[in-house]
Amino acid sequence: MKEIRQNENLVNHESNTGNIKHPPVTVIGLGMMGSALAHALLKQGYQTTVWNRTADKADKLAAQGAVVAGTVAEAISASPLVIICVLDYRVVSEILEQAGDTVHGRAIVNLTNGTPAQAHQTAAWASEQGVEYLDGGIMAVPQMIGSPEALLLYSGSQKIFDAYGPALESFGSARYLGPNPGLAPLHDLALLSAMYGMFGGFFHAVAMIRSAQLQAETFTSLVVPWLQAMSASLPHLAQAVDAGEHQTKVSSLHINQTGFVHFIDACRDLGISTELMTPIQELINRGVAEGYGTDGLSRLVELLRKPELA
Amino acid sequence: MKEIRQNENLVNHESNTGNIKHPPVTVIGLGMMGSALAHALLKQGYQTTVWNRTADKADKLAAQGAVVAGTVAEAISASPLVIICVLDYRVVSEILEQAGDTVHGRAIVNLTNGTPAQAHQTAAWASEQGVEYLDGGIMAVPQMIGSPEALLLYSGSQKIFDAYGPALESFGSARYLGPNPGLAPLHDLALLSAMYGMFGGFFHAVAMIRSAQLQAETFTSLVVPWLQAMSASLPHLAQAVDAGEHQTKVSSLHINQTGFVHFIDACRDLGISTELMTPIQELINRGVAEGYGTDGLSRLVELLRKPELA
Repeated sequence: MKEIRQNENLVNHESNTGNIKHPPVTVIGLGMMGSALAHALLKQGYQTTVWNRTADKADKLAAQGAVVAGTVAEAISASPLVIICVLDYRVVSEILEQAGDTVHGRAIVNLTNGTPAQAHQTAAWASEQGVEYLDGGIMAVPQMIGSPEALLLYSGSQKIFDAYGPALESFGSARYLGPNPGLAPLHDLALLSAMYGMFGGFFHAVAMIRSAQLQAETFTSLVVPWLQAMSASLPHLAQAVDAGEHQTKVSSLHINQTGFVHFIDACRDLGISTELMTPIQELINRGVAEGYGTDGLSRLVELLRKPELA
Repeated sequence: MKEIRQNENLVNHESNTGNIKHPPVTVIGLGMMGSALAHALLKQGYQTTVWNRTADKADKLAAQGAVVAGTVAEAISASPLVIICVLDYRVVSEILEQAGDTVHGRAIVNLTNGTPAQAHQTAAWASEQGVEYLDGGIMAVPQMIGSPEALLLYSGSQKIFDAYGPALESFGSARYLGPNPGLAPLHDLALLSAMYGMFGGFFHAVAMIRSAQLQAETFTSLVVPWLQAMSASLPHLAQAVDAGEHQTKVSSLHINQTGFVHFIDACRDLGISTELMTPIQELINRGVAEGYGTDGLSRLVELLRKPELA
């Protein structure tokens, strides 16, 4: 059944090139990520035009069937849907300036890494130009693009998201977060911070394990299920944050404060730097000092939101 | 089928009280955790003797069928298997001193929170006394005790672990890590640090989400699957650490360093304290400064193990 569907899709790809279901697409920026995006479109049968500041990066994609545009304006004119994935928003601005009038009537999807403020600025420019604008964040490394494991977050023009859904799904799983264009970069950065926190804790843990001449890989058979079990408690913590109700019978800041003293001592005994753990300890200590000792860990979120600490 | 098995167990419990499969057990220390341990034993039909420094904590357990001992020596004499779960190892030492000769021939399982060094000290004392000693770490809050979701790590006397497995499984899933008594507290603290890292990253992420007046709970539908997907990469990072081979085509320290600058700027734009994220940034920057810019994140583990940084 699955194979039959794939064959049907293949027929559709071939017969529909250029129609509304498979519109031509332009990809601007051919770094590792931009190249992966263009490659995914070609693989799905989209007529794909590419452009990069240094033209040689397009050679491999040209061999795969991409049309290589000579100028930004030519690239943007080639397709109703334009994907931009460059180094930063400064480069996005330069490209859009070079594009001139060719942007009118185009649907622009910007997958460049940036901040909510930058997304708002670009959306404001697009609105002035009468251009539909969708901002996006890619929660994947280039190697993952084209698989459902790659998650792409979008915000801004729902019109683009609805009209070009299949093209966007060539890259991976697509999730629309709302019309506020800053939502995609906000969620992108929030997910990254959660990842960095988990990685930081894991690296500290592995440093402890390695200090006892044990294999880190063996330890993952404990720590991966452990983290997955602990991640199940995050919705409960989130509810406490939303409600502003931090009472707990389970794990108060005071209990965590007491446990942390032993924990830090043990790390020092083992010769492990505590630099990734003491900031958490200090935050817990501040929570207790501010009178929240009987509250749960969820209380810590608001301590990160006090402007004087930013 | 499940109910029939439960009934069979119930019959076994009643008929076997006091035999090798269901030996009498003593629990010393009736804080929240010690009480949960005693309660779990009673529930499984074990003849349970309890003792606490302040006797009134035993009242509830007595009503459930526990025998309340008048002295430590009386408590320890009552059972071949003695579980200790008190505030810290200082209290463990005091209790074992009070116990005097009654400890001889007992199997002592110490579930008190502590460090690998403290476990080694207590094991050395036990060895001098001719006492079997099993150290343990409880990866659960008291409310979880008695369910398979509670994970208990053990190290030290395999003889105790093998002989008293069913009693220990009353508390939750039991895992024996090896004869080195420090292994249980080492893994306990390592798992805790992984958890604190994940929670810290999550709290930072939620602070960002809340700064945009969004619901933290909605965000968990993105962040929980995201963290679970990212946790799947931990074995790969662990292999790199074990092998000391940190080359990457995916996510170099240099790429992470560049991305972090935007990320920190965005946090400051949103009025979020970066105190939990800048330590990770500084570690990445140090890795790049030491010449590891093209290595992957796995390189960071050894930067935490340099004695001069401890």
